[in-house]
Amino acid sequence: MKAIEKILINNKAGKFVCVGLDSDIKKIPKILQSDKDAVYKFNSEIIEATKDYAAAYKINFAFYEQNGSKGLSELERTAELIPDNILSIADAKRGDIGNTSEMYARSVYEHFKFDSVTLNPYMGKDSLQPFLDYHDKLNFILVLTSNPGANDFEKLLLDNGKFVYQEILLKINQWNDHHNCGIVFGATKTEELKSNIKNFGELTVLLPGVGAQGGSMSDVKKVFKDNKRENYIVNVSRSIIYKSSDSDFAEAARNEIIALHQISY
Amino acid sequence: MKAIEKILINNKAGKFVCVGLDSDIKKIPKILQSDKDAVYKFNSEIIEATKDYAAAYKINFAFYEQNGSKGLSELERTAELIPDNILSIADAKRGDIGNTSEMYARSVYEHFKFDSVTLNPYMGKDSLQPFLDYHDKLNFILVLTSNPGANDFEKLLLDNGKFVYQEILLKINQWNDHHNCGIVFGATKTEELKSNIKNFGELTVLLPGVGAQGGSMSDVKKVFKDNKRENYIVNVSRSIIYKSSDSDFAEAARNEIIALHQISY
Repeated sequence: MKAIEKILINNKAGKFVCVGLDSDIKKIPKILQSDKDAVYKFNSEIIEATKDYAAAYKINFAFYEQNGSKGLSELERTAELIPDNILSIADAKRGDIGNTSEMYARSVYEHFKFDSVTLNPYMGKDSLQPFLDYHDKLNFILVLTSNPGANDFEKLLLDNGKFVYQEILLKINQWNDHHNCGIVFGATKTEELKSNIKNFGELTVLLPGVGAQGGSMSDVKKVFKDNKRENYIVNVSRSIIYKSSDSDFAEAARNEIIALHQISY
Repeated sequence: MKAIEKILINNKAGKFVCVGLDSDIKKIPKILQSDKDAVYKFNSEIIEATKDYAAAYKINFAFYEQNGSKGLSELERTAELIPDNILSIADAKRGDIGNTSEMYARSVYEHFKFDSVTLNPYMGKDSLQPFLDYHDKLNFILVLTSNPGANDFEKLLLDNGKFVYQEILLKINQWNDHHNCGIVFGATKTEELKSNIKNFGELTVLLPGVGAQGGSMSDVKKVFKDNKRENYIVNVSRSIIYKSSDSDFAEAARNEIIALHQISY
């Protein structure tokens, strides 16, 4: 199934929550920490408990790479746990010269077999092209991010009156011939979301920043509803997976995703 | 030894070439390809043959990550081969929200124990801060890259008359309190190098793009000489490590780095 179809089917079923598996050995419940395969076991229980409500799972490479080859082995096995009807996102923020991006694309789409990836556009189109050449995948390109530093360069004003991130948004729309582009737009930026959503075109939107970072699920849902748009997913990481630090962590994660799923606007 | 000291000592000795270990199993000599530890053996021979002339070794994570946990095991062991008096660079182009960048910094500086890293500034200062908190390391932040796509966003004109990359250069100078910042500036951009070098301040410069990408070692050396500046390194990857595809590959790599080392201006 094409990546974009997985999102559309889940959106039609009212599912908009992406579970971020930012699984850090130091933060997972103590009862698991002594297990030599702790992170994998944690992910396995979280996925099992949340899969009826998840529109996507997002795996952040940093949390695995910090443990080198052992961490990437946990990543490989976690990626295989994601049910085939739910979008898998490699949150890697990649982007490099063409020759190198080809290797990163091979990593994410052929070795780890993800449905989609997050990409950093700073180095321009040729740095993303190897990912765009995978027509059945979905490439979420950073537009306006959820962190305070988004103001430093993403919001610099250009001589044409637009912000840098708005120029990037415009270009991504032009790169979407194969309907395999999406964007990352911070859920913490409600005002910018309202004023830019009309320029999103057909692009699928991944919105991080709800929960620990302070974004509001109901605000995001309302903006999309008001603009009669679907094909978006809202990422929540820490406030689902670390909802409880006790033995009931999986049940607590399930209750949290159900609560987020039911939020109205 | 601090990362910056390694560069200064090598520069004083007339060494400016960084060897890029973009080692791809498909491109290394056929005689090694059947070995089950081929990439590691290739790297080992290349480092041994070039270490008398190298100012730095740059390992591009993409080439290893494409093979998942097995690739990262090769990366771990290759990083250990780099002599302690030569700068090791993790070419990873990282940058993410603070919480995640902390994990990437832990990966590069604590797990893999590199001296330095390449970073992507798009997400702003807080996305780089966890790397900047390592005062003895050297953080090479992308300014103007060597690829054609550098024109897409890096060279957008701002309303203050500067290009985006020039605004980023200005900010990096302000972030350099601990003398642990450097910049990436494409060796393919000689005109921009000439017109911006006066604004580099104390920043160490990593210049990729000589060789396969078309940049000229002698042009780069001349610009730095004319401006009475040291503390720079010029990366060369493919045209050193793949100089010969036969059993003499290590000797050919050595001859190539000697030739690059001796280029005058």
